[in-house]
Amino acid sequence: MTKTAQPAKGNGDSGNIVLSIDAMGGDKGPAMVMSGLHKALQRNARLRFLVHGDSAVLEPLAAKHRLLRERCEIRHAADVVTMDSKPSHVMRHGKGTSMWAAVDAVRDGEARACVSCGNTGALMALSMIRLRKLPGVNRPAIACLWPSRNPAGFNVMLDVGADIRAEAEDLVQYALMGAFYAQIALELEKPRIGLLNVGTEEHKGRAELKVAHDMLLEAAQSGLFEYVGYVEGGDIPSARTDVIVTDGFTGNIALKTGEGTARLVSDLLKQAFRHSILSRLASLLALTSLLRLRRRIDPRRVNGGVFLGLNGTVVKSHGSSDATGIEAAVRLAHELARADLPGQLAHRVASVEEARQGAAQVGQLYGNQK
Amino acid sequence: MTKTAQPAKGNGDSGNIVLSIDAMGGDKGPAMVMSGLHKALQRNARLRFLVHGDSAVLEPLAAKHRLLRERCEIRHAADVVTMDSKPSHVMRHGKGTSMWAAVDAVRDGEARACVSCGNTGALMALSMIRLRKLPGVNRPAIACLWPSRNPAGFNVMLDVGADIRAEAEDLVQYALMGAFYAQIALELEKPRIGLLNVGTEEHKGRAELKVAHDMLLEAAQSGLFEYVGYVEGGDIPSARTDVIVTDGFTGNIALKTGEGTARLVSDLLKQAFRHSILSRLASLLALTSLLRLRRRIDPRRVNGGVFLGLNGTVVKSHGSSDATGIEAAVRLAHELARADLPGQLAHRVASVEEARQGAAQVGQLYGNQK
Repeated sequence: MTKTAQPAKGNGDSGNIVLSIDAMGGDKGPAMVMSGLHKALQRNARLRFLVHGDSAVLEPLAAKHRLLRERCEIRHAADVVTMDSKPSHVMRHGKGTSMWAAVDAVRDGEARACVSCGNTGALMALSMIRLRKLPGVNRPAIACLWPSRNPAGFNVMLDVGADIRAEAEDLVQYALMGAFYAQIALELEKPRIGLLNVGTEEHKGRAELKVAHDMLLEAAQSGLFEYVGYVEGGDIPSARTDVIVTDGFTGNIALKTGEGTARLVSDLLKQAFRHSILSRLASLLALTSLLRLRRRIDPRRVNGGVFLGLNGTVVKSHGSSDATGIEAAVRLAHELARADLPGQLAHRVASVEEARQGAAQVGQLYGNQK
Repeated sequence: MTKTAQPAKGNGDSGNIVLSIDAMGGDKGPAMVMSGLHKALQRNARLRFLVHGDSAVLEPLAAKHRLLRERCEIRHAADVVTMDSKPSHVMRHGKGTSMWAAVDAVRDGEARACVSCGNTGALMALSMIRLRKLPGVNRPAIACLWPSRNPAGFNVMLDVGADIRAEAEDLVQYALMGAFYAQIALELEKPRIGLLNVGTEEHKGRAELKVAHDMLLEAAQSGLFEYVGYVEGGDIPSARTDVIVTDGFTGNIALKTGEGTARLVSDLLKQAFRHSILSRLASLLALTSLLRLRRRIDPRRVNGGVFLGLNGTVVKSHGSSDATGIEAAVRLAHELARADLPGQLAHRVASVEEARQGAAQVGQLYGNQK
């Protein structure tokens, strides 16, 4: 059923990197996914894919291009997780789905990272039960990139919806994980971390934020990141910080509010340009400028929420991704795989925790003098 | 010191409405405030103002225009609440400030509503201690208007920052207060209420949201509003709902995220248009279109957060308001004063609470059968 030249395993001694792809479940279907993979293969000679889904659909798509034929291994999966499948149902009955198989390939060491544009809730739930949490991590998080005024053009925000709660300790771990993610995705040496709150004064906000604030001041001693203190909603797209740390409830609402607002402004802009003959002419002249703006805030260029804190790397591509979006998600997964995301995160979480316990012991020895 | 033709009291038997104005503390100074008041007086013959602030500054400004001379009474206040004053400090030591005097004029029945463009936190704190909460209201809220796809062009959101917490009961009161506010500000007969959450499915979100969801389904029986269920961040600027109900922490972050995102998009748009000669030409041609867009989402047109749930009406105008913004805030205060906001809110809160207790008693009588 498969005709792969080199079904490279996991890390591959050849220097190749194998990614596991869930080709089903996106809004635009498997053809768009295969087209994105083809683009990615053209750019990177070291990439190999395990592609999960309906082989009757995928084989003919792969047959069209030599690169796909040579560097993809199609793995048949009869079932699909749909966009409206309930995560709890998928966890119990999802074993035959392409999503399950795609995650399991990472679990089994066959691939270094997984990419899916399917149902986010189901993907998170499956990743949790199949990959399990990293040692020392209490709550995994979903990190996203957000258009900003920073030179890289984007900030990282997490958690944007893995969990609706976060204790102070979780927020500190988010900071550590977000800092590492920003180092890779935004190529920053020492990312600046901000803690999302309703004001920047020390006395403001919820109790767990004050505790996290103090813990972050201390954890910043590790040198792994710079801590800039509290930031507000208006700072999310700003140049004040590189990483915005918050709980998954607030983060999800902020993310969707931002997306909704940007969509409204852009729709109103289109309306404004359609209003008269003169404005239509102007929009023609402004076309390249408007395209430039669109490119600047194009979600396809930064496609992919990343699940952090698991024994394996999973990238969630937008459900409505086209080939460019899929390619961006694949590129991100590749970068994270090369950097050994899970291993590095586990190491950092452990070292900061050790430092904290060490400090606590020293505090006890000296009677917690301040 | 004052030269008012008719220092009309509170409601005034003349049919005039008196508003109390804090003329100090905004970013653009008292001259801008007086200019806004002048605009408002030109439009409405029934308006009278009590203007609080430094009379040495205000008297000469009022002297310039006949309408201001005739229909403003200047009340001298030596001190000013600055933008960086701490609310707790203002509560203890703010007695000589124009903000304090402006709120007290509502408390004492001299004016029907108060407008200030000063420090939000201090204004909220002062309003709380001087006006006190309405009977039956546990947590007052700040409501704002948000550009949306609805015919009115705006939605109402609350709480956007009066309190960082909200229990289920508070969220139900926010719904009642927001519905009434939307009736007045957006001229809607039966506003639709949405409860902000991270998903629209029944099982999602925090525990207090599930309780509030059930309570709102019941409270909607009152006929005072329609309840559309959970809404997400992306629905805040949508036509799915007229009022978005949330706690003050989430609401404040969503509000500032939306503002920040809109500002980023508009700045990037400007950059795009400045990029080349052709795009500069296009921007000239598109000028009216762009101005139309700007007008559509202009915060000045909907200027004013409103404090709901107090024994008196207080409108917070943007700190950076110009004359148009001040005028909009004054017009809003005038509408709310005419509608007797506090009286109506107290009545509604009491009637829904009665219905709830009645239902609970009936439930007890029948052994809480379901």
